[in-house]
Amino acid sequence: MRAARMHGYKQPLRIDDVPVPEPGPGEVLIKVRATGICRSDFQLTDGYFPLELDFPYIPGHEVAGEVAQLGANVPASAGLSEGDPVVINPAWGDGTCRQCHEGNEQLCTGSGGWIGFGPPGGFAEYVTAPCRHLIRIDPNAGMEPRYLAPLVDAGLTPYRGMKKIRDVGRLGPGRTVVVSGIGGLGSYGVQYARLLGDGATVVAFARDEDKLAVARQNGADHTVNTRGKTPDQVRADLMELTGRGEIDAALDCSGAPQSLELNAALLAAEGTLVSVGLMGQHVEFPVFSFVSGERTFSGSFWGNHNDLTEVLALAGQGRIKHTVTPVGLDDINDGLDALARGDAIGRQVVVFD
Amino acid sequence: MRAARMHGYKQPLRIDDVPVPEPGPGEVLIKVRATGICRSDFQLTDGYFPLELDFPYIPGHEVAGEVAQLGANVPASAGLSEGDPVVINPAWGDGTCRQCHEGNEQLCTGSGGWIGFGPPGGFAEYVTAPCRHLIRIDPNAGMEPRYLAPLVDAGLTPYRGMKKIRDVGRLGPGRTVVVSGIGGLGSYGVQYARLLGDGATVVAFARDEDKLAVARQNGADHTVNTRGKTPDQVRADLMELTGRGEIDAALDCSGAPQSLELNAALLAAEGTLVSVGLMGQHVEFPVFSFVSGERTFSGSFWGNHNDLTEVLALAGQGRIKHTVTPVGLDDINDGLDALARGDAIGRQVVVFD
Amino acid sequence: MRAARMHGYKQPLRIDDVPVPEPGPGEVLIKVRATGICRSDFQLTDGYFPLELDFPYIPGHEVAGEVAQLGANVPASAGLSEGDPVVINPAWGDGTCRQCHEGNEQLCTGSGGWIGFGPPGGFAEYVTAPCRHLIRIDPNAGMEPRYLAPLVDAGLTPYRGMKKIRDVGRLGPGRTVVVSGIGGLGSYGVQYARLLGDGATVVAFARDEDKLAVARQNGADHTVNTRGKTPDQVRADLMELTGRGEIDAALDCSGAPQSLELNAALLAAEGTLVSVGLMGQHVEFPVFSFVSGERTFSGSFWGNHNDLTEVLALAGQGRIKHTVTPVGLDDINDGLDALARGDAIGRQVVVFD
Amino acid sequence: MRAARMHGYKQPLRIDDVPVPEPGPGEVLIKVRATGICRSDFQLTDGYFPLELDFPYIPGHEVAGEVAQLGANVPASAGLSEGDPVVINPAWGDGTCRQCHEGNEQLCTGSGGWIGFGPPGGFAEYVTAPCRHLIRIDPNAGMEPRYLAPLVDAGLTPYRGMKKIRDVGRLGPGRTVVVSGIGGLGSYGVQYARLLGDGATVVAFARDEDKLAVARQNGADHTVNTRGKTPDQVRADLMELTGRGEIDAALDCSGAPQSLELNAALLAAEGTLVSVGLMGQHVEFPVFSFVSGERTFSGSFWGNHNDLTEVLALAGQGRIKHTVTPVGLDDINDGLDALARGDAIGRQVVVFD
Repeated sequence: MRAARMHGYKQPLRIDDVPVPEPGPGEVLIKVRATGICRSDFQLTDGYFPLELDFPYIPGHEVAGEVAQLGANVPASAGLSEGDPVVINPAWGDGTCRQCHEGNEQLCTGSGGWIGFGPPGGFAEYVTAPCRHLIRIDPNAGMEPRYLAPLVDAGLTPYRGMKKIRDVGRLGPGRTVVVSGIGGLGSYGVQYARLLGDGATVVAFARDEDKLAVARQNGADHTVNTRGKTPDQVRADLMELTGRGEIDAALDCSGAPQSLELNAALLAAEGTLVSVGLMGQHVEFPVFSFVSGERTFSGSFWGNHNDLTEVLALAGQGRIKHTVTPVGLDDINDGLDALARGDAIGRQVVVFD
Repeated sequence: MRAARMHGYKQPLRIDDVPVPEPGPGEVLIKVRATGICRSDFQLTDGYFPLELDFPYIPGHEVAGEVAQLGANVPASAGLSEGDPVVINPAWGDGTCRQCHEGNEQLCTGSGGWIGFGPPGGFAEYVTAPCRHLIRIDPNAGMEPRYLAPLVDAGLTPYRGMKKIRDVGRLGPGRTVVVSGIGGLGSYGVQYARLLGDGATVVAFARDEDKLAVARQNGADHTVNTRGKTPDQVRADLMELTGRGEIDAALDCSGAPQSLELNAALLAAEGTLVSVGLMGQHVEFPVFSFVSGERTFSGSFWGNHNDLTEVLALAGQGRIKHTVTPVGLDDINDGLDALARGDAIGRQVVVFD
Repeated sequence: MRAARMHGYKQPLRIDDVPVPEPGPGEVLIKVRATGICRSDFQLTDGYFPLELDFPYIPGHEVAGEVAQLGANVPASAGLSEGDPVVINPAWGDGTCRQCHEGNEQLCTGSGGWIGFGPPGGFAEYVTAPCRHLIRIDPNAGMEPRYLAPLVDAGLTPYRGMKKIRDVGRLGPGRTVVVSGIGGLGSYGVQYARLLGDGATVVAFARDEDKLAVARQNGADHTVNTRGKTPDQVRADLMELTGRGEIDAALDCSGAPQSLELNAALLAAEGTLVSVGLMGQHVEFPVFSFVSGERTFSGSFWGNHNDLTEVLALAGQGRIKHTVTPVGLDDINDGLDALARGDAIGRQVVVFD
Repeated sequence: MRAARMHGYKQPLRIDDVPVPEPGPGEVLIKVRATGICRSDFQLTDGYFPLELDFPYIPGHEVAGEVAQLGANVPASAGLSEGDPVVINPAWGDGTCRQCHEGNEQLCTGSGGWIGFGPPGGFAEYVTAPCRHLIRIDPNAGMEPRYLAPLVDAGLTPYRGMKKIRDVGRLGPGRTVVVSGIGGLGSYGVQYARLLGDGATVVAFARDEDKLAVARQNGADHTVNTRGKTPDQVRADLMELTGRGEIDAALDCSGAPQSLELNAALLAAEGTLVSVGLMGQHVEFPVFSFVSGERTFSGSFWGNHNDLTEVLALAGQGRIKHTVTPVGLDDINDGLDALARGDAIGRQVVVFD
């Protein structure tokens, strides 16, 4: 089969011809139909994550496909048959830690692994996965693999983040929620602000008009181009747009310190800032303001099995808009380069025929 | 009456002879028995807070006393009679904002005021307060005013902070909770870690052996002198003391950036750091760690009426240890100086005869 | 002024000519524009509630009007001027109990009173109310008093109930939520299931096709006529409509035991049943099922100030559909009779010229 | 090996000689040291549960023992060696349903099974279990198997119930919490009221002075013998004992309708009643009271892996008192009979030499 493989860090992927893998006991062989290209794929190839990979290595963790072959011991209760459309829930915990026992395998502090960051990933025509991490898709719902693939990360991560905002009570009528950074994650984030916002006013922040246009298409009530603006200038923009210079919550999808710090500066009393952007820099917050106004900053990471099931339910109802650019496997390095530059709009997805 | 008054910023208080105030409609005149000296009193006299005060001004917000006279229109339902022991709930909201309507008057974003930061405070023989902000103390419970006074701020603030940690589920058996900064607030904070900790292991951090001794007396299972230590050194200490190099939660009572950053560096996955220290500096956190481990930083400010009622209930059960140094009104400036230097142990309280 | 007054229990109201009341200190005189007729008004006149009223008495607690005169001592911070459109938040706590200090004055266990159930109500051309219980309406939002009035009870009560369901995590994509009883409250309840449901499938239960038609207009995905059906029959209907025979949550607006028991019988594991119907009968639940599936039954009562502000924010955005039948003051007894029979559709509102 | 087996419903167990089982792949053979006798064991033998068992069948789900042999494919990450003391987490979900993905395998609505209710249980000298359901016990902590065994059900179930009360905010200083029914579960329940109560006043209800004596030994502040008393009489007792005739929360361990109804009648506004007693009868509640006071009734079932880990952590700290009666395997039917009559005090445990 054809596969895009890393032969070392900071090198382009190479398209190699390799054997189709065999599914082990409890595993399933999947014919890959579409695999999303994530900023974390660029980070992986750039050597950003402290992982020990055996080269050559196939990355790719946003995988939609169909069941090609069941391995030994796949139980009937898994409900899987050859030809079934599936997505792979990519975060595989080891089942021993407190987080796994809460169902948050993506936070496993044991020896869990993630497809595409350890086990071979989906930038290949076939991949194997344990049957318990497959979610079967209704074949009659008409969901195309290219739209399903990004849901397992780009579409999942901001969903969990927005749930965290909702669950601390910062959404609802009369509230203002900001989504900042309208790339692969943020273009979904704006939609979740609308779908889970319970009447909150949704404002998108970005530094690029094309991205703000995507935000408006995806349901933002207002947009602010924050390029070069001070917090006070953005506050003035908000006052004009919403009648209020403060925000109750922000979901930051950019991970950039200046974006986080801008959002923090705009938080109302009891406001909350949730970051889903997986960047390595440091952010600086004023202690007095956080304490005196009981403000909160927290991270939200990827999503768990139930989160993903919910996202797929929304997609099955046709309630999620996708901004997807199909990419051929041969052009995968161009896709990674666009993410490195930060100028990808929506999600690039490798589509297999 | 005698009163300690500010005649300007960055000047010592002066002991002046002034008229006893008259209670207005709905107000009560209180004979002050004891008033705590808070670090925020030092900050106030130092000009730290952006307030507009009319000098000369009487500060003091931790007030315990007894009812001396009821003003007009104090309703019978207030349940107050002359001679009743009372404490003053000091955070007076204006009742119009969302926070006030949640009962969080201390977070009022309207025109609320706080006794000792606007309305005249308790470093005086008498003070007036609206009847609805008085909490009557059982005269048979034998609670001395000098121990009651600090409960309205030093004893209240870490209580609310610890409740926030409990309410996000980070206490309980097998958990480790740190209280950092064992001064006026932290000496209570350690006790709440024990009382609300539901079996969690309680570790105190400070940079002074005398303060760590107070922490041990107040129920800390373990103490770490963090002076000059790196996070890795503290992690090694924790490993030795608790069998684990991580913590699930921290209540920072110091407000110092290095203390907050140390605590953040030690947080386990899903760990939470709550700050109650009202300092003005900036704190720097690593974004990647907060996101990938879903860690949280939040502020907690003072406490509301129900929080204070709960603290007084604990005190009435004899479950709170007090570390109080009585101070004569004439020596109040010495007390403020000790707070400026950061070397006060427990709480200094001005006691009136 | 003209006023509809009770002269005893179980008697029709009489339209009397009485003096316009004078606003006391801190009170406001309101020119009434519209007052909703609630099932609890029928219950009041029928002698259902254990209240001591001085006859003749003016009921009516869903009041929208405009400021006619400010009493003494109404502070500028109240933000009220003559002519301002307002609604009256009707649940007035006494401010001394734990519930009041949480902002839940409608649950006051002290000596709080409710307009229309103690203080004179709004079935009259004028009424007085304390300024702090008035919520000013944006005069430019074009909200008609006849639509505003029912929001303070019929529109508020199911909103709080649905928030309780959301806040225990039983809404969202893939969930099913039932609203049962599509009368004055339920016609709003269905809308909140949609607005706060975060993608949940909304099913309305009623025993009358006209009411189910209202539910469909207000956003129900499916409706079931439950008249004469066993739980198993309704389960079969659900299976056909939603692909699943269970529900995750129910908001019961009927208060009828058979409706509550039907909903309870359909709850999935971890399901929750919230009742807002204020009836006096007993309901019977199977203990085994509640325990083994961790099911929950809870009551939700009216709403607090912030809840009402949120409902008015939704209305101001044009997101609430009203099903209102205007009634002249002279026809008020006909309105009460329709509620006694249970055949009112939507909300009847007394409209003043 | 010797095993106590059911040969049909409503028959005494027979002590049979049967082969030692072989551990399958991923399974562990455990030498049983102690197995608790639970009321649900009586219910099982009595035919109460709608299960299909193959007779002869070995019940017993509260199992402590030590590792005798590792089956094939038990991974090193399981951290198990021969001779290690372990307890078996008995609720085994199938891993496919929403509850399993939350970590609540005890609520599995798929095809999960529970040791002792499907897979052979622990009333035998040896038993097998999947390695992922074993919790290793520190061999140096000095925890005896006879005290560990009941913790997996009698000691776990009220722990989870009390956590639910805590997590809805009904514990803390000034609150009153009742534990009703002081048998196998309730004698632990009282301790958790104290350990998790955060200063709440703990009251035990039972109808037997011996059981109330156990409650006092286990930390109840007050006890009420409720035999033959009306709610008003119990309210008067509470008033005398606690100064208040109401309670904020109750954990019912009896499952008896009259106990649940008594507790419900005593609940304060916003009060919560949690039932852990797995009985089949119906309970009757007044709708008006639940709605107008926002009271809540909910079930809590057994516990999950993390709950059990927490209970074992408390036990390891020596913070749990055990009321255990050792029983020889030959006397197991006497133990079941005592549970049938409801006069067992504390927990009976079959102890193996």
